[in-house]
Amino acid sequence: MSVEKLRNTPPLVVCITNDVVKDITANGMIALGASPIMSGEKSEAESLMKAAGGLLVNIGTADMKKKDLMHEMIKAANNYNVPVVIDPVGYAASEFRKNLVDELIQSHDIALIKGNAGEIFALAGGTGSSRGVDSTEKTETSEIGEMCFNKLNIPVLVTGETDSFVSGEGTVTMRNGHKMLENITGSGCLLGAVVSAFIAVEDTLQQAVINAVSYFNLCAESAVAELKAPAPGSFRTTLIDHLYLNDDTIFNGQKVFSDAE
Amino acid sequence: MSVEKLRNTPPLVVCITNDVVKDITANGMIALGASPIMSGEKSEAESLMKAAGGLLVNIGTADMKKKDLMHEMIKAANNYNVPVVIDPVGYAASEFRKNLVDELIQSHDIALIKGNAGEIFALAGGTGSSRGVDSTEKTETSEIGEMCFNKLNIPVLVTGETDSFVSGEGTVTMRNGHKMLENITGSGCLLGAVVSAFIAVEDTLQQAVINAVSYFNLCAESAVAELKAPAPGSFRTTLIDHLYLNDDTIFNGQKVFSDAE
Amino acid sequence: MSVEKLRNTPPLVVCITNDVVKDITANGMIALGASPIMSGEKSEAESLMKAAGGLLVNIGTADMKKKDLMHEMIKAANNYNVPVVIDPVGYAASEFRKNLVDELIQSHDIALIKGNAGEIFALAGGTGSSRGVDSTEKTETSEIGEMCFNKLNIPVLVTGETDSFVSGEGTVTMRNGHKMLENITGSGCLLGAVVSAFIAVEDTLQQAVINAVSYFNLCAESAVAELKAPAPGSFRTTLIDHLYLNDDTIFNGQKVFSDAE
Repeated sequence: MSVEKLRNTPPLVVCITNDVVKDITANGMIALGASPIMSGEKSEAESLMKAAGGLLVNIGTADMKKKDLMHEMIKAANNYNVPVVIDPVGYAASEFRKNLVDELIQSHDIALIKGNAGEIFALAGGTGSSRGVDSTEKTETSEIGEMCFNKLNIPVLVTGETDSFVSGEGTVTMRNGHKMLENITGSGCLLGAVVSAFIAVEDTLQQAVINAVSYFNLCAESAVAELKAPAPGSFRTTLIDHLYLNDDTIFNGQKVFSDAE
Repeated sequence: MSVEKLRNTPPLVVCITNDVVKDITANGMIALGASPIMSGEKSEAESLMKAAGGLLVNIGTADMKKKDLMHEMIKAANNYNVPVVIDPVGYAASEFRKNLVDELIQSHDIALIKGNAGEIFALAGGTGSSRGVDSTEKTETSEIGEMCFNKLNIPVLVTGETDSFVSGEGTVTMRNGHKMLENITGSGCLLGAVVSAFIAVEDTLQQAVINAVSYFNLCAESAVAELKAPAPGSFRTTLIDHLYLNDDTIFNGQKVFSDAE
Repeated sequence: MSVEKLRNTPPLVVCITNDVVKDITANGMIALGASPIMSGEKSEAESLMKAAGGLLVNIGTADMKKKDLMHEMIKAANNYNVPVVIDPVGYAASEFRKNLVDELIQSHDIALIKGNAGEIFALAGGTGSSRGVDSTEKTETSEIGEMCFNKLNIPVLVTGETDSFVSGEGTVTMRNGHKMLENITGSGCLLGAVVSAFIAVEDTLQQAVINAVSYFNLCAESAVAELKAPAPGSFRTTLIDHLYLNDDTIFNGQKVFSDAE
């Protein structure tokens, strides 16, 4: 009853995210049933965190000013025990992004790192290029996630054709979704916000990640199924529709595999 | 002939608005027939206000730099007699937003304040929480509007399930619209811009507000009527379509009630 | 085989663009098959340009900080021989924008200037007002382009009902497209990015501009043809779809005329 719970008590999720995806992030979250709020002013950190159920920090299009904002927001989140999700967009694309993410991770308590295979591979110390903000899957997302978790000891969600969640409880791999998600900007960024929303209402981090990823990906599947000629413009519109129209019954199609299986 | 007039002489409306809604604001305004322009540079204030028919200032995602920008833009607008609409998004969400709005209102001439019930309730000095940027309707929008007008003596538009406009000429309540508007981000922000556009072409503020709110809400109704399964992605797309496709004949469905009735 | 080539080796295009159009720019570029990346941090310039195939600089909503960013990005682009496209959005709307564009053009090597008729007319030293960010076509785009090229000696693409490209090789006029493009925000801005992507994969600037403009405009035509009641919300969605769904066969409809004809 994951989605129902979320809709009954909509979590306020503060989304510090990049300039390209603010629209799809806000619309996707509202369609889901969550309550997103965005801010560009660090003096708002305390007021917002007092009321928040989650904080998403997505470092795409960051600059020096947003770096300050991110530190202040995460500091306040830590003070109020608000779980923090970090999305290291384009981690390997510049020294600035790399240093920013490394600093945020070292300075604060992070509940979850969520990135695509290329980003998490680089974050785990892998060498090889993460081209632009896109992912190149060199190895399985589960392996990449394990490399990263072993290095940083922070739970990690690695997205790709399959999605893997690695934490102290082992590795869980999820096999829903559709490749059309790669053809719109911000689908991964929106997923980061969706995960934050589920963390605010689920009992455990693992359950939250599994349900968030599954719900999101199953909505992508049901959206594509509705389109005659799947294409990114209408897919984006329909994905937002399906985040709103679906409910917990969609979890019947969930494909989740843990270590043991 | 309100919409026809607007389309015949498209008003240039400077929109200083939040980062989340710039896309829907620009697209909605162009669909309507207005000419929006956005700016992030305070030295542009004079050039822009010389040519402008309206200025919208929406304080969502504001920061210290945008605070300066807003002051400069409104100062220039006042110099050139350009009517200023303020949308105090998330007024009660932080001290920063509260202080910013209070300062803007005290320092300059404001033609209209436009906000949702929660925001205007807080602005009127009501205590109670405005959660995130969403509204909680505690009392009728007309009562909230009257509280606010009595306190600030600035005409006010309060949006909600019903919308109320309160000015020195009394209270007008409008009963069009559709709750699907709450499921997309920026519908209220776009309405603020639409009101600015109508102010630029109508003879009186009251006529402008009534026609702007009615046209916008009637377009929402006609958009929903076209959808098989109303959902926020397709509703947003269709709302923009209907702002463009409709004309003055839609006012036949207008539901407006003044004090006296 | 222009589009096929682009999709086989997707060029990384750094898009420094205005706040209103980041979403449509990123989505349009991904739909086309290119790899867009955006940045707000000048220290990223070198890292990004090392990997980039193109740089678009669109000056809408610029401010003093973005001015610095633009200079740094173009400087790095020049160092790494990355072709730079400048879109002087709202050139005549303020002294700030005028000075910014003039400075960028004088300080760096620019491969192409791309703007609407009003912007290029003003840039060419024509007097008359470019109202807001919209274009007023006073004369043919070919004449305006020639005025501008004669003054600045930089290849120029002038968009309007017809589109003209003027360079040392003469003038080429393109007659595809649909007026619905004027009813959505960012169509011209997206075209600037699309041109950047084609420049990265075509052998000559002229071939790149012709194919980019033709592909984009033919996609607009095929998108409109699919709509029952053309309107801007659904047109935008469908335009993105068609940038993705079409391929090189669409060039059969290309209407291109050079000087000699």
